[in-house]
Amino acid sequence: MKIIALLTDFGLKDQYAGLMKAVILGINPKARIVDISHNVRAHDIKEAAFLLSASFKYFPRRSIFVVVVDPGVGSERRPIIIKTKNYYFIGPDNGVLSLAAREDGIKAVRAVENKNFFLSKVSSTFHGRDIFAPAAAYFLKGRPFACFGRQIRVIKEISFPQPKISKSKITAEVIHADRFGNLVTNMKEKHLKGFGPGEIKASMGNKKITRKYSTYAQARPGEPFFITGSSGFLEISLKNKSAKEFFKIKNGSNHKIIVEVL
Amino acid sequence: MKIIALLTDFGLKDQYAGLMKAVILGINPKARIVDISHNVRAHDIKEAAFLLSASFKYFPRRSIFVVVVDPGVGSERRPIIIKTKNYYFIGPDNGVLSLAAREDGIKAVRAVENKNFFLSKVSSTFHGRDIFAPAAAYFLKGRPFACFGRQIRVIKEISFPQPKISKSKITAEVIHADRFGNLVTNMKEKHLKGFGPGEIKASMGNKKITRKYSTYAQARPGEPFFITGSSGFLEISLKNKSAKEFFKIKNGSNHKIIVEVL
Amino acid sequence: MKIIALLTDFGLKDQYAGLMKAVILGINPKARIVDISHNVRAHDIKEAAFLLSASFKYFPRRSIFVVVVDPGVGSERRPIIIKTKNYYFIGPDNGVLSLAAREDGIKAVRAVENKNFFLSKVSSTFHGRDIFAPAAAYFLKGRPFACFGRQIRVIKEISFPQPKISKSKITAEVIHADRFGNLVTNMKEKHLKGFGPGEIKASMGNKKITRKYSTYAQARPGEPFFITGSSGFLEISLKNKSAKEFFKIKNGSNHKIIVEVL
Repeated sequence: MKIIALLTDFGLKDQYAGLMKAVILGINPKARIVDISHNVRAHDIKEAAFLLSASFKYFPRRSIFVVVVDPGVGSERRPIIIKTKNYYFIGPDNGVLSLAAREDGIKAVRAVENKNFFLSKVSSTFHGRDIFAPAAAYFLKGRPFACFGRQIRVIKEISFPQPKISKSKITAEVIHADRFGNLVTNMKEKHLKGFGPGEIKASMGNKKITRKYSTYAQARPGEPFFITGSSGFLEISLKNKSAKEFFKIKNGSNHKIIVEVL
Repeated sequence: MKIIALLTDFGLKDQYAGLMKAVILGINPKARIVDISHNVRAHDIKEAAFLLSASFKYFPRRSIFVVVVDPGVGSERRPIIIKTKNYYFIGPDNGVLSLAAREDGIKAVRAVENKNFFLSKVSSTFHGRDIFAPAAAYFLKGRPFACFGRQIRVIKEISFPQPKISKSKITAEVIHADRFGNLVTNMKEKHLKGFGPGEIKASMGNKKITRKYSTYAQARPGEPFFITGSSGFLEISLKNKSAKEFFKIKNGSNHKIIVEVL
Repeated sequence: MKIIALLTDFGLKDQYAGLMKAVILGINPKARIVDISHNVRAHDIKEAAFLLSASFKYFPRRSIFVVVVDPGVGSERRPIIIKTKNYYFIGPDNGVLSLAAREDGIKAVRAVENKNFFLSKVSSTFHGRDIFAPAAAYFLKGRPFACFGRQIRVIKEISFPQPKISKSKITAEVIHADRFGNLVTNMKEKHLKGFGPGEIKASMGNKKITRKYSTYAQARPGEPFFITGSSGFLEISLKNKSAKEFFKIKNGSNHKIIVEVL
């Protein structure tokens, strides 16, 4: 199985994502390319790290993830390739790969610096096309991991915000708002374990959330509730409505949720 | 030919459409995946039903359509697979498949309930990834239709609004606005048969439409007109302008058109 | 290698791009389809011509580009196929192909008029599905170039605006704004050759640009600068900000830049 999965902030209006595919197929016509998203907010490393973390484990083993959210393109930040227990990750060493790679178990990291695996002319603004795409295509073609560059001992990490738990309350936050306006929090099932519907005293801004359901269908119209979302985190949702609009949330992240522990 | 066509309301910012593809290719690497659209309005079953109906007949015979516009995900609504004269349709039994399936001729319907064809862990919020995508991939791989679940006698239908025709007028409506602002109506060529340009007395809101042309090029700038669109319905268009903006239409559907029969 | 690259203004909400793929795969299941973009501004031939010109040379030799930005669909404008030194281009003869085709070197042009290579029923509003997609699929399948239609001597050209250079100044313009708000100009590296950072006296509207850098990282926050972009043109950028917003530019093109020659 020969999958290269792409995750970028290039958008779908410009030619950028298409050119990565052109370069990949020019080097390795057998590659199967899957888009995770090209609509990461421009330069938002955290959002890309979350999307990658929510995605990678559904891909076939040995898939290669090429992640280009790269505000430091052309600077000293290194291009890297990470080998984990089940996958490969290629992208800038700015933390965007770290969350998923750590979750799967990092086995080895190399710099991507062997110019034989770049396009012959490398621009200073589009390494997705000139470095990351060709490197992925050559790697998929069988070029050995060790040939890509020197070994890297420490990669840049981004920290995923953990809920803060005290005796009287949990302070959590929204890390992503999806297309439906579901608000993905950094809490997991276990954090609200033991709370039944109506027993939860949680709030975000000046609005309360008192219910946790296991399906959307259980909820009443207009009522915000917790539900375990498809990426394994608790989400705040409304039935067939946007929780993002209900809570008047702008960028979809960094909003505090306070849960009182009874 | 091994095509799985996807039609969802998942949007292109989140990882959802990409994960359906990851799951499909993990089960069946030979699948060719074609996106019809992932930008159906959230939860808009009617819009998805229209887009599917306008699309399916252009795909090779035996293509499999996976349609996930599924506001009832996790509730009692059944996942189903429909075999029609030429195609297969997989999705929730909420009417979204009914328009296209009926048009092609329904041969048999099964519930999709055999857990061997699901992901091992099924979430309550993302059956696109956990049920519909794997079921389609296994079906494409040759798993027999009858193995997916018990036979279904009656599926949920959605009614496509028909124009109302009286002696003195036709009352039609807009069912879709496309990217160019063309307004797809529920009228067909036959409804305006015999009307020549300038003979039509039609109106939508307080604006008149008096022309029907066979190409955009025949129209004069700024003038709204009827034209037979590519999905077989009459559309209201302006030459190189948006009829949606001209008529100040918001969501693109449910706007009444009155045609006087002379 | 069997690539058909698509560039259209169909957007990603409607079924149009998906139907082109359905038709292509129905005729030629071996085609590999790559989307350059479907989000060209509606009817914007110049934008599509620019995107094509910035893209084609990154595709494998003998790729076929199908470009459908076609405000004259259904009128007398001809569908054409162009053979260039390394590629093939299919689309309407409205200039959209001319920039890229001329750049690669035109070898021969044919009208696309052989109805054997069309869908059996051709609409008057969607030649992307009914003419251009099937023609590309048949051509990729080996149908001879000469069979598509009569030879064409002169194609419609669009002129790419050249910078105007006088003794005291260069008058250039913005031809495209990308997703990040980078403003692609019609100047190349050579036009600012010899200018060091701080020596440039350029302006757009009432704002000045005095720097040219080779990477984004060199720039100071909030400062607009020139940089050679990935399509080979000089771009005006801000570090991690949108130059489009900084200069309050609306459609992203046709804005004048004045560079004083010292």
